[in-house]
Amino acid sequence: MAHTVSPLAPASFPDMPVIGGVRLASAATGIRYKNRPDVLLAVLDPGTAVAGCFTRSKSRSAPVDWCVDALKGGMARAVVINAGNANAFTGKAGVRTVTAVASAAARLLGCKPGEIFQASTGVIGEPLDPAPITSALVGLVRAAKAEAWPDAARAIMTTDTFAKAATVTAKLGGRTVTINGIAKGSGMIAPDMATMLVSIFTDAAIPSKILQKLLSRSVDTSFNCITVDGDTSTSDTVLLFATGAAGPASKGIKSAADARLKPFAEALDGLCLDLAQQVARDGEGAEKLIEIAVTGAESDRAAHRIAMSVANSPLVKTAIAGEDANWGRIVMAVGKAGEKAVRDRLRIRIGGITVAKNGMRDPAYHEADIMSHMKGRHIVIEADVGVAKGKARVWTCDLTHRYIDINGSYRS
Amino acid sequence: MAHTVSPLAPASFPDMPVIGGVRLASAATGIRYKNRPDVLLAVLDPGTAVAGCFTRSKSRSAPVDWCVDALKGGMARAVVINAGNANAFTGKAGVRTVTAVASAAARLLGCKPGEIFQASTGVIGEPLDPAPITSALVGLVRAAKAEAWPDAARAIMTTDTFAKAATVTAKLGGRTVTINGIAKGSGMIAPDMATMLVSIFTDAAIPSKILQKLLSRSVDTSFNCITVDGDTSTSDTVLLFATGAAGPASKGIKSAADARLKPFAEALDGLCLDLAQQVARDGEGAEKLIEIAVTGAESDRAAHRIAMSVANSPLVKTAIAGEDANWGRIVMAVGKAGEKAVRDRLRIRIGGITVAKNGMRDPAYHEADIMSHMKGRHIVIEADVGVAKGKARVWTCDLTHRYIDINGSYRS
Repeated sequence: MAHTVSPLAPASFPDMPVIGGVRLASAATGIRYKNRPDVLLAVLDPGTAVAGCFTRSKSRSAPVDWCVDALKGGMARAVVINAGNANAFTGKAGVRTVTAVASAAARLLGCKPGEIFQASTGVIGEPLDPAPITSALVGLVRAAKAEAWPDAARAIMTTDTFAKAATVTAKLGGRTVTINGIAKGSGMIAPDMATMLVSIFTDAAIPSKILQKLLSRSVDTSFNCITVDGDTSTSDTVLLFATGAAGPASKGIKSAADARLKPFAEALDGLCLDLAQQVARDGEGAEKLIEIAVTGAESDRAAHRIAMSVANSPLVKTAIAGEDANWGRIVMAVGKAGEKAVRDRLRIRIGGITVAKNGMRDPAYHEADIMSHMKGRHIVIEADVGVAKGKARVWTCDLTHRYIDINGSYRS
Repeated sequence: MAHTVSPLAPASFPDMPVIGGVRLASAATGIRYKNRPDVLLAVLDPGTAVAGCFTRSKSRSAPVDWCVDALKGGMARAVVINAGNANAFTGKAGVRTVTAVASAAARLLGCKPGEIFQASTGVIGEPLDPAPITSALVGLVRAAKAEAWPDAARAIMTTDTFAKAATVTAKLGGRTVTINGIAKGSGMIAPDMATMLVSIFTDAAIPSKILQKLLSRSVDTSFNCITVDGDTSTSDTVLLFATGAAGPASKGIKSAADARLKPFAEALDGLCLDLAQQVARDGEGAEKLIEIAVTGAESDRAAHRIAMSVANSPLVKTAIAGEDANWGRIVMAVGKAGEKAVRDRLRIRIGGITVAKNGMRDPAYHEADIMSHMKGRHIVIEADVGVAKGKARVWTCDLTHRYIDINGSYRS
């Protein structure tokens, strides 16, 4: 299936700087796709710390199981990512494959298999033969270069219509550190399920325990705040590698809450949000990016659940695809979330204009006032549920005919 | 918008017998639709007991609030249902409307306003003027007839493509009692949300407390087991009225668990399931009825959540629309439900054929074997999650282009 680039894609691929201690290479192994790179190797200098966040699915893939286990060591020497086969629901064969890939990479790099991280995306339920990957590794280790970011981002794509990357800098311990991230994710892959894979690299020197706390916090307000259709992959993986090549951070940083980490933490938040929004912007069939801000909820968690209820509502998403400011459906989606909301204090704004307040339509509201907002590419919905001070903000895309085309077609 | 009849509709409207103590009439009041009946009155003889189940939405409509309150009295003399305006999110004006309709009907029937039940479906956020309804009531009380079931079922339709009704009989206290039910519901109503309204009438003599237990139990395995798109209306209402016209039931029935009630309870279960399936069969854009049976879960409740996760997955629903036996998406939907499942014991069958077992594809499975099942109108998915003995069965429909057409069109 040909994929035209999403109308919500960024204008261009960012100019990605080198990250000390990170070298990248990709290869076309023909696992599923022909004539395109489908395996990425990122080689990391010794001493690289690692953190990770994974799918909450109860049927997660073999590479996710592997990473969760490897993460206990806290150190990484490489990450191997393949597109085309998710190595999910593959039983013992799946475990043998991740073990073989890790052993081969560890042998080449002179490290422990537990320092090799892995992620896979693509068809599920099909055994993934490790041979094409392990054979490619020799060449990949040799070819790895510090500048290969565009190819790296392309090698992990499946039905993505554009390669996703972002870069930021921050001050840490008197030095400037850099954070680069690449991501893939587009909703769903015909004939299989979506997967979001993200790899983030920084030259900052931060130990893995602190790195994990920073990553978990950033993921909570970024990758956990996007949805294309409410379906959760078996394989979602976000990895963060810190090589320390920028030089030692301030001594005595013992906790993620240390104020000296704040600029780094904020830069990481921003990078994660940028990548997360790129995934939502590449949602299958997306014509509009939808931002949903909920305030006044019992807690931030309650606000998040209400916002996700709106974001996952097929009714809301089809209405927006039709450029219809159908706030009644927003009321419905707030109501069905199961969280506390005071109906008679509920206030809804679309594109900054109040459409409903005090449990009924705002008498001053005229639908014509928001028609130009509805015709735009970025729709903003705000709902205040009148209970307390909990708040959340999430992003999704609209539900269009192309989503059905992409996901309802026969398997070829 | 013209609606062609769902390909999943029953062959014909059932032959509905008279229920002693129930008389029906409908009228065209022009609330929203032109030239079609849009208000239904069912007059009930004195002594009629009532039970009800309602939406769990936190932003429920004024008629739902009214019914919940009226239910405390346990007795009913009438139910008034209108289509075209849901009287939801209408603030104090909404309360004034339900109060005015109840007062007018109570005056005409010589009863308390709290014995008048109400339900509304249609546009939300628009004030519902009580005048057209209260004016029509005089004529409706006069015109009410015991035989008017087909007109009654039609008067409450919105985007339904066929009128929904069912009838059953059961033995109770040595007599044959009859249960008639009518329902409306079709997923969503452009430009507004779906609502499922069900009214059930029986000539059995059963006090309201026992009636409530029987109804709640039946609803749990029927109306709570269907979904079109996971969106919950502000207005869902199921009411059960027992006139007692068939004569007194066995004396000494003090509990819903009394074995003498079993035939009635089973008949009620069957009737509710029939009506619930009719709603799923009329899901917007539906081409296939999907039945999902989950076994081996930690509890029946866990099984229900897993089954609903599969039923609400846009990925599963679009795959079935495309006649694609994409069991990988079923694995994903089981995994995302958040309930315990043993990946390596997971077994999935489609159309009775095992496609996956022991955490991987069944080696004996060939996709060609289930192609004829996938091309049919009734798709059966079974998933055993290998934990314990919890089970559940739910029904939904596929997700097609017509769903987007119906719900993504501009409001006219």
